[in-house]
Amino acid sequence: MTMPAIDAPRFLDRLAALARIGRDADGRLMRLAASDADRAGRDALAGWMREAGLEVRIDRIGNVIGLWDPAGRAAAPVMIGSHIDTVIDAGIYDGCAGVLAGLAVIESLARAGRTPTRPLALAAFTNEEGVRYTPDMMGSLVYAGGLPVEAALATTGTDGTVLGEELVRIGYAGPEAPGFLQPHAYVELHVEQGPVLEREGVAIGAVEDLQGISWQEVTIEGTANHAGTTPMSLRRDAGVAAALLVTWLRERARAGNGRSVATVGRLRLEPDAINVIPARAILTVDLRDPEAGRLAAFEADLAARLDALAREEAVTVTVRRLARFDPVTFDPGIVRAIEAAARARGLSVRRMTSGAGHDAQMMARICPAAMIFVPSAGGISHNPAERTADADLVAGAEVLLDVVQALSGA
Amino acid sequence: MTMPAIDAPRFLDRLAALARIGRDADGRLMRLAASDADRAGRDALAGWMREAGLEVRIDRIGNVIGLWDPAGRAAAPVMIGSHIDTVIDAGIYDGCAGVLAGLAVIESLARAGRTPTRPLALAAFTNEEGVRYTPDMMGSLVYAGGLPVEAALATTGTDGTVLGEELVRIGYAGPEAPGFLQPHAYVELHVEQGPVLEREGVAIGAVEDLQGISWQEVTIEGTANHAGTTPMSLRRDAGVAAALLVTWLRERARAGNGRSVATVGRLRLEPDAINVIPARAILTVDLRDPEAGRLAAFEADLAARLDALAREEAVTVTVRRLARFDPVTFDPGIVRAIEAAARARGLSVRRMTSGAGHDAQMMARICPAAMIFVPSAGGISHNPAERTADADLVAGAEVLLDVVQALSGA
Repeated sequence: MTMPAIDAPRFLDRLAALARIGRDADGRLMRLAASDADRAGRDALAGWMREAGLEVRIDRIGNVIGLWDPAGRAAAPVMIGSHIDTVIDAGIYDGCAGVLAGLAVIESLARAGRTPTRPLALAAFTNEEGVRYTPDMMGSLVYAGGLPVEAALATTGTDGTVLGEELVRIGYAGPEAPGFLQPHAYVELHVEQGPVLEREGVAIGAVEDLQGISWQEVTIEGTANHAGTTPMSLRRDAGVAAALLVTWLRERARAGNGRSVATVGRLRLEPDAINVIPARAILTVDLRDPEAGRLAAFEADLAARLDALAREEAVTVTVRRLARFDPVTFDPGIVRAIEAAARARGLSVRRMTSGAGHDAQMMARICPAAMIFVPSAGGISHNPAERTADADLVAGAEVLLDVVQALSGA
Repeated sequence: MTMPAIDAPRFLDRLAALARIGRDADGRLMRLAASDADRAGRDALAGWMREAGLEVRIDRIGNVIGLWDPAGRAAAPVMIGSHIDTVIDAGIYDGCAGVLAGLAVIESLARAGRTPTRPLALAAFTNEEGVRYTPDMMGSLVYAGGLPVEAALATTGTDGTVLGEELVRIGYAGPEAPGFLQPHAYVELHVEQGPVLEREGVAIGAVEDLQGISWQEVTIEGTANHAGTTPMSLRRDAGVAAALLVTWLRERARAGNGRSVATVGRLRLEPDAINVIPARAILTVDLRDPEAGRLAAFEADLAARLDALAREEAVTVTVRRLARFDPVTFDPGIVRAIEAAARARGLSVRRMTSGAGHDAQMMARICPAAMIFVPSAGGISHNPAERTADADLVAGAEVLLDVVQALSGA
């Protein structure tokens, strides 16, 4: 019988086609979760799934799941997944490469006339990026039972919209209960979004664990006053306090063993006038570390720093937890299968830690899971310059194919 | 004949009435220049001027000027002025107290049947605050010939509007050429917006000079990248660079002799996402000092710091000058007249420097000018908590009356 093989041109063409969907007036890729652009991307993906013979099912949180069960066995499926929502001014690979590689895998098995002993399910999870609605990885978190679907649907976005209403508006508030398919196993292909594989010249990353994430929103309240008449010594400047926090976070992260990272991605001042001392600063703090103890220690140091800042700068500080995920250890058996598949194809492979959060960490709560990484040029991601070589993408899809065959008996 | 006297209740009632105009949905006072709220405030003021027998004239930059010339002498007028536009979430005294005190002065002279040898002109200048359009003090700057009216009208606001179009929209694009009345002298009453008078228990400030102002917009460009996968050592974080600048500005201002002040009132990050390292930070820098040499030295140190920051943080820095005004020395004769009037009424008085910019500094370019300050509770301004006691406001208006009489021969 014929050997299944990835149709590379078709896989890459679809990646390019999806990359054209959801551009803003300035040409920036911006397929924010549950937006009109996201709807257009979902429509294209669902269409491709149906062409490939998949049954498209939508759950209440908007996850798009394509089911392929040629043998009609209705057993626990092997699930392949990722996401197609993006950040603002995004690259074209993050998430999309994994979803479309999964589609290419199923098509290659179908073309080769395989009937796996287990169904295959391809998932595109809602709102992985968490730019418009928090927390991120929301669709897979809800699917895995980590967040009640009602709570997720009630989330208010940065633009004041409510996720549940937006899903209805774009036609992706589905009937299925999140988690309606209990997977036998979950595998996700993703671009590394970091510099390790490229720097070491390694083709495949077998991701064995994933760093923990702590997201907090810090609000600092001082006193608005006239920028010209208020002596420096009499100011309660929320902006200066925020700046001191930003610089402290970098020093604290640098002081670690190089595994901790800290980022302030959002910072807003009020009243936001040139000649008025800021009365309020609202900023987000993103802390990550692969080791649970170190992440908790960083959070404790941050809390202590905020107390000291409130005293030293005579400001009031309030903190709101936006998201918190402990580090995750993936399934050793699937990680070994990824290594074995890579070696069998003559591809260099290394075990590694994921620096980013991924849907796989949520799915790991309900089934054995692991991830396949492919190199990111310059380690750049969440940026239009994000790039992975075609050959690396195809190699990753081929390893995914082999691992899925092994897990599904195809 | 009867002595002119300020009608205190009427003066204070009008101040309260103007304070009710231009509140937003949250009750915040926000009469930004050339907005619908500003239109409503201008309409109220123009109505009161006409009731008082003033001829209301509007110039091309929207300055509202009420002329009172009972003797029909058409000589160079003594001008009293300030502004009624406000910052965001403003107090009720800044600007408004001076304009309405001027109206009270003219009414008191009219009631007493005085016919001054010189006409009196009451001016409410456009866009003194500079929140929506820069530079601030724009109306008086244009009136004094310091900025071509065409350039001012072409200014694009923070909300993308064009000032000239907004003035037409609200009906205050007048026919008069800015500067159409060459004043014999200019006097402005204003709340101190600082803590000096209250702290020293002095009723009246005779403002003899005004500190210089330097406004710049700094844009810092780094690289957007993933907050989880990018090691601290490989980041080009525009937000961190901005924070380092904010903290440096405070230290540099504190290192001075207590006369220099530095403020970052606006700061914006892009792309403004929790999990993306900021690619761009755009912030405003407001530097002030009463001594020209010290202000220039601060600006030079800032330029040097920005060069160093670009090197140290591997970012690119560009600077745009928004406004620049040298320190101003007011007319010694008018300053003495203010002191004399205060003493004659048994009011404590001291000479002082204005920490804020005022329309008077622009008018000082074309005629003898000076200012009268009254105490600000707690030194607070540009804030809803801004407050000046009624008795202090009335005392200031009475000193203004005496000075205007002396200058106009009323």
